[in-house]
Amino acid sequence: MKIVIVGGTGTVGRAVAAALQERHEIVRVGRTSGDYTTDIADSAAIRRTFDGIGRFDALVSAAGKVHYGDFAAVTEKEVSIGLQDKLMGQVNLVLLGRDYIADGGSFTLTSGVVGHDPVRGSVCASLVNGALEYFVRAAAFELPRGLRINCVSPGLLVESLPVFGDYFPGHEPVPGARVALAYVKSVAGHQTGQVYHVI
Amino acid sequence: MKIVIVGGTGTVGRAVAAALQERHEIVRVGRTSGDYTTDIADSAAIRRTFDGIGRFDALVSAAGKVHYGDFAAVTEKEVSIGLQDKLMGQVNLVLLGRDYIADGGSFTLTSGVVGHDPVRGSVCASLVNGALEYFVRAAAFELPRGLRINCVSPGLLVESLPVFGDYFPGHEPVPGARVALAYVKSVAGHQTGQVYHVI
Repeated sequence: MKIVIVGGTGTVGRAVAAALQERHEIVRVGRTSGDYTTDIADSAAIRRTFDGIGRFDALVSAAGKVHYGDFAAVTEKEVSIGLQDKLMGQVNLVLLGRDYIADGGSFTLTSGVVGHDPVRGSVCASLVNGALEYFVRAAAFELPRGLRINCVSPGLLVESLPVFGDYFPGHEPVPGARVALAYVKSVAGHQTGQVYHVI
Repeated sequence: MKIVIVGGTGTVGRAVAAALQERHEIVRVGRTSGDYTTDIADSAAIRRTFDGIGRFDALVSAAGKVHYGDFAAVTEKEVSIGLQDKLMGQVNLVLLGRDYIADGGSFTLTSGVVGHDPVRGSVCASLVNGALEYFVRAAAFELPRGLRINCVSPGLLVESLPVFGDYFPGHEPVPGARVALAYVKSVAGHQTGQVYHVI
């Protein structure tokens, strides 16, 4: 399979690439590096990137910015960051990707543990993760041509502990390699409309 | 209590008002009618409406536009309708409402059954409902001054059967008066961070 990994240069994206690259052709898309670069908050940029890549069999998105910070200081502006980037960026990868993906292909998006298990400062991220998870479940049975769509909700990554650990008291960290398995299940498996919680 | 009902002239809003008006002062806010009118998609309009109403004890939102239609024809534009209106409209009622609500007050938002139980054509609505439900759960424990926040997810209303019934095969319709009870529980009860499914 030709598998596009958007966010392919990030922590999760690299782990997913490592798990899939022996058996598949990987196309890494990053914000500033990779086989292609794109800005997922800009649908015209996504379209150009897809035009460059051409037909593919699976798309994995492990990309998206979202605001973290105390809810007391959250305004419309902070919420909008995640709506435009992590949410609409990933949704647009699906909406536009439908024109480029092969029959029977799959989309795999990324939410995150603070969706169903919020921490202090996660309000904007929790909102976006809820939107992504419900989007995937609703879109699954309306996709044509045997296309599938799933979402992975990774827990706090072991690799992210030094930076984010203090914000996630009591969360059991998950190695990137274990998170990557959920993406492999989505891409190489046969389920659709699922949210895989790796916690 | 002085209770603001945004969407107070709609099917759900009227049922909520009927359930609360004997014991409480009700301020109805509608798009084109009511004690006040506002456009929840415009945060400046919300601010002006709150300035007119002044201090209140509870806010119920049963308002918000969202696109329904086959996913095949959904583009960024159709998704944006719900993001700007039903989602950010209700989120902004909370973000801005924090400056007007009395200590110990409550916010009650509205998602809908197609969040956790999607139907054909509900992708945009499902996405918005997921965002609202996860927002409420994450925001609850960061609200100061004993403020509370909950969400009601109403099923298909009996009153909506003539218009929407055909789109909800197998859904058991719920009378508006029964849906209203969940709002009463949220406003007059003591829970926070809850999603009340009335199905």
